[in-house]
Amino acid sequence: MRRGDMIEVVGFDADDTLWQCQDGFDEAERLFVDTVSPYASPGVDLEDALRATELGNLAISGYGVKAFGLSMIEAAVTSSAGTVPSRDIGILVDHIHDMLREPVRLLDGVADALHAVAQTHRVVMITKGDLVHQTRKVQTSGLHHVFEHIKIVLEKDVSTYRAILNEWGINPSTFLMVGNSVRSDILPVVELGGFGLHIPYHVTWDHEVVDAPKGTFDTVASISDVVEWLATENPS
Amino acid sequence: MRRGDMIEVVGFDADDTLWQCQDGFDEAERLFVDTVSPYASPGVDLEDALRATELGNLAISGYGVKAFGLSMIEAAVTSSAGTVPSRDIGILVDHIHDMLREPVRLLDGVADALHAVAQTHRVVMITKGDLVHQTRKVQTSGLHHVFEHIKIVLEKDVSTYRAILNEWGINPSTFLMVGNSVRSDILPVVELGGFGLHIPYHVTWDHEVVDAPKGTFDTVASISDVVEWLATENPS
Repeated sequence: MRRGDMIEVVGFDADDTLWQCQDGFDEAERLFVDTVSPYASPGVDLEDALRATELGNLAISGYGVKAFGLSMIEAAVTSSAGTVPSRDIGILVDHIHDMLREPVRLLDGVADALHAVAQTHRVVMITKGDLVHQTRKVQTSGLHHVFEHIKIVLEKDVSTYRAILNEWGINPSTFLMVGNSVRSDILPVVELGGFGLHIPYHVTWDHEVVDAPKGTFDTVASISDVVEWLATENPS
Repeated sequence: MRRGDMIEVVGFDADDTLWQCQDGFDEAERLFVDTVSPYASPGVDLEDALRATELGNLAISGYGVKAFGLSMIEAAVTSSAGTVPSRDIGILVDHIHDMLREPVRLLDGVADALHAVAQTHRVVMITKGDLVHQTRKVQTSGLHHVFEHIKIVLEKDVSTYRAILNEWGINPSTFLMVGNSVRSDILPVVELGGFGLHIPYHVTWDHEVVDAPKGTFDTVASISDVVEWLATENPS
């Protein structure tokens, strides 16, 4: 029996699975360090300070570019004891608005792979992040029509996946989730009794890194391999 | 026939219908003006500058506290030609994070009215805004269990309402929407063939003000009047 025969619905993560995301945050972080360095208080590690501010605000501001932007500005002020000129703050805010404005950059092979999977399976998107920004990315991706459902959520854990699959009437044992984060895309779905297919991205946000992945899931090198994975005979 | 007999589902807006919202933005705007005034460039009207920046960013950053915060910081820098000290920017960012953190303040009579309506009707929430912040407000309101569905959307127009009612299997002719914004809560639902019940709030964001309300809808003074409105004999 082919794996694809057991699976009825294929869910895709979006950021760093369908399109570039983390690179943009990394670039913003470099801009932050370059901009604030001349004014940083002695002994302050700017990257650590930014990360600590981000994590401290995560519960109230969530993931996404706007939350990151506010944390970046807070960290710029506190790390420099208020000595960074506000015109430099202006540079950081403008960069955040540019990030929100910039066109989505699809990863290689995404459009072909999604259209191929959609010929044999129901296709959905489950992604974290900011409602406005993710909606804009979906709409400008040209891929909106491929997805039967699109859900933008706050956190991708077992209870979130259970609620979504329940709402959509999907039995977890017929569901495959494809994504770049073992923590958010793979482990919770495997725990629910579904399938996970990991596509590593060249950078992973520290927060998404898990020490010892539990459960059983496969890894492929690129999204172009998903169709073949679905078509492969299942050894069991 | 009572109005409530024709209506099966009652939808509630959230901000300034169930809990205070605009007051918080107005307070933040006063803080912005007080903070930036000493550094404002000659001839700049700070309130106008903030509003113009907000509207200019609306398409990419949307509604909500985080989007407002980034616009406020951008406006502080540009309106002062970069002369506002960054410690003052820090005060504005802290205030934004406080807004995200502060407990939801229910308007008078909301809990009783919602529980009463829920005894005779299916109850849903349709609200604009930021996913994280609105979810937090719903969860801390203590009213989460009253709602059969909760939808947080980018814009409340005819096509949005049509899609939501369709997804929930609700016939517009059996749907009543209750809210403080004629533009967002009432007119689009009336246009779809549903009912609108307007509860004016003492302040309305300029952006939500409509010049000449079209269509037919009723107005009540407070959410406590919704139950009686549903129970009133319909003259037609």
